[in-house]
Amino acid sequence: MIQKQVNMNKILIFFLAMLCFFSCNTEEQTAVASSKAERPEYAMVIHGGAGTILRKNMTEEKDKEYRDALTQALEIGQKVLAEGGSSIDAVQKTINFMEDSPLFNAGKGAVFTNAGLNELDASIMYGKDQNAGAIGGVTNVRNPINAARAVMEKSEHVMLTGKGAEEFSKKQGLEIVDPSYFKTERRWKSLQKAKENEEDMGYEIQVLNEDYKYGTVGAVALDKEGNICAGTSTGGMTNKRYNRIGDAPIIGAGTFADNTSCGVSATGHGEYFIRYTVARDIAAMMEYKGSTLEEAGEYIINQKLVEKGGSGGVVALDKDGNIAMPFNSEGMYRGYVTPTQKVVKIYKDE
Amino acid sequence: MIQKQVNMNKILIFFLAMLCFFSCNTEEQTAVASSKAERPEYAMVIHGGAGTILRKNMTEEKDKEYRDALTQALEIGQKVLAEGGSSIDAVQKTINFMEDSPLFNAGKGAVFTNAGLNELDASIMYGKDQNAGAIGGVTNVRNPINAARAVMEKSEHVMLTGKGAEEFSKKQGLEIVDPSYFKTERRWKSLQKAKENEEDMGYEIQVLNEDYKYGTVGAVALDKEGNICAGTSTGGMTNKRYNRIGDAPIIGAGTFADNTSCGVSATGHGEYFIRYTVARDIAAMMEYKGSTLEEAGEYIINQKLVEKGGSGGVVALDKDGNIAMPFNSEGMYRGYVTPTQKVVKIYKDE
Repeated sequence: MIQKQVNMNKILIFFLAMLCFFSCNTEEQTAVASSKAERPEYAMVIHGGAGTILRKNMTEEKDKEYRDALTQALEIGQKVLAEGGSSIDAVQKTINFMEDSPLFNAGKGAVFTNAGLNELDASIMYGKDQNAGAIGGVTNVRNPINAARAVMEKSEHVMLTGKGAEEFSKKQGLEIVDPSYFKTERRWKSLQKAKENEEDMGYEIQVLNEDYKYGTVGAVALDKEGNICAGTSTGGMTNKRYNRIGDAPIIGAGTFADNTSCGVSATGHGEYFIRYTVARDIAAMMEYKGSTLEEAGEYIINQKLVEKGGSGGVVALDKDGNIAMPFNSEGMYRGYVTPTQKVVKIYKDE
Repeated sequence: MIQKQVNMNKILIFFLAMLCFFSCNTEEQTAVASSKAERPEYAMVIHGGAGTILRKNMTEEKDKEYRDALTQALEIGQKVLAEGGSSIDAVQKTINFMEDSPLFNAGKGAVFTNAGLNELDASIMYGKDQNAGAIGGVTNVRNPINAARAVMEKSEHVMLTGKGAEEFSKKQGLEIVDPSYFKTERRWKSLQKAKENEEDMGYEIQVLNEDYKYGTVGAVALDKEGNICAGTSTGGMTNKRYNRIGDAPIIGAGTFADNTSCGVSATGHGEYFIRYTVARDIAAMMEYKGSTLEEAGEYIINQKLVEKGGSGGVVALDKDGNIAMPFNSEGMYRGYVTPTQKVVKIYKDE
């Protein structure tokens, strides 16, 4: 009888011990999982926009053009990081290349507003001190991400807009160009098409078909010092009106960085990314729930945003160099680089 | 010997059971704690700015003037809510009253920019569908919160700025005033004082002494349907330059609302509130960590922000009608109302 009681107690002890282990240990298990892989010396992840990017609509030439541009962009950031440069420099130089490329909807190649202008938005955030800078609606600064960096480093403000942001950029010695510099035939035609659609419909179409909408660029880097920086630059939406500001220059929506969790740059239907503070939300899930970067990215982009109807994606990396590139659209121009890997992707099925 | 083993096992079982209980049960305990109090039929909490508000610097007359204004503001929202109106209407009408009052730095009574203008920012967010609207840098819309609401309800965008936001507001039939409408002698003198300080120093002072900086207004309401709405309206910082945008029109920074967690309106040194996505962070701690509103508000405002050097405060309420008004500055004009309570406070020690 006593022996039986001892056995019963042993079973109970085992059961309780298992219960404790499985019900309380989620956070620790996560931490172990993410520290398993050794932190790479440096890492960078980039995007060139998400949207209706389907294999069937691409020519072999166009496909190659984008892959080459993404590869070059990665190599620019890699050089900075490999030489021990800061994640801020890596992000800025990488984004500068994409801003200067007419392939992307940022800097040269930006989409047109309803008034036939290019109004550019950008932001940057440094994970070490969570300092940040952003500019909205500038029309004559060649590289908007440089203006965002100047706001971060040379002003006590975080966000400047319109004429004021242009005046500040000029005072900081940034390259000012004639607004016509940003014009490309492709984007001009998109505007004309959008306006024709509006005429057919007979009313203002504020948010257009996905095809017009995306192409934002962004980069997140982790340097040898362990500092994360995230940056985003965009021309916004074709045919936008009323000095609309999207998520790209909003800290917490399009861009976020915190050395203790992760860095994020977003692309997609900006209004949803603002309302759901997407970039910050991924970091917040890591900070407050103990989620891994992958879990947080998957939940926010492929569950929460999908349920709410917001399309797009993010690129992100955490303090351990883990990389995530979740998106819920048909494709996203994206890639990442570490000392041992260089990967570029476009479609969903690769 | 066997009896001893049985006793040992009993102790072990008790120990493991206690371990399970205390280590896994935090979230459930929190939920029980916050559902203990019965949800009031409706609730609203407001602020009229945080900053260096000290009893010794106030006259009896000025003290009374602010308390009367806050009380009137609460009564306006209370009337809407008691009659079964929506939290959106309650927030809008309450903020309209504070915008029209020269006491607060929003609407009439807004501070001046370096160029001698009043540039107004506002935002509103509805917790039911997390729709949101914001305007930045308008100079001629009498009630900026009405423009934010129009953006939320009548456009597919979340944020409009400058001339575009003004054009949109006019098209929506909002009351447009001559920019001189916003001028008050008190704020004009503050600008002159700020400019004199700059001349003495010999360089641009971007962020001034706290005294010049605060006075933003905000309201968060919970209506009978259980829907939360949060709104914020401000003139920003005295002597601001370069079309600076603060936290008030940034969703996630100055304003946030989600029926499943809480609504928040912030006031303070806006740049910090943007970088730390303060309004969203309080909701995120509730959502991802299971914190109560009080715990989240205390941690973000009185620990995280204090460590980072960001001064200010928030008013917030959760889906159960719990109210929090944490601030880390010397004072905050604040108050709340429920069917059974009406409370107005100014200083820290009350």
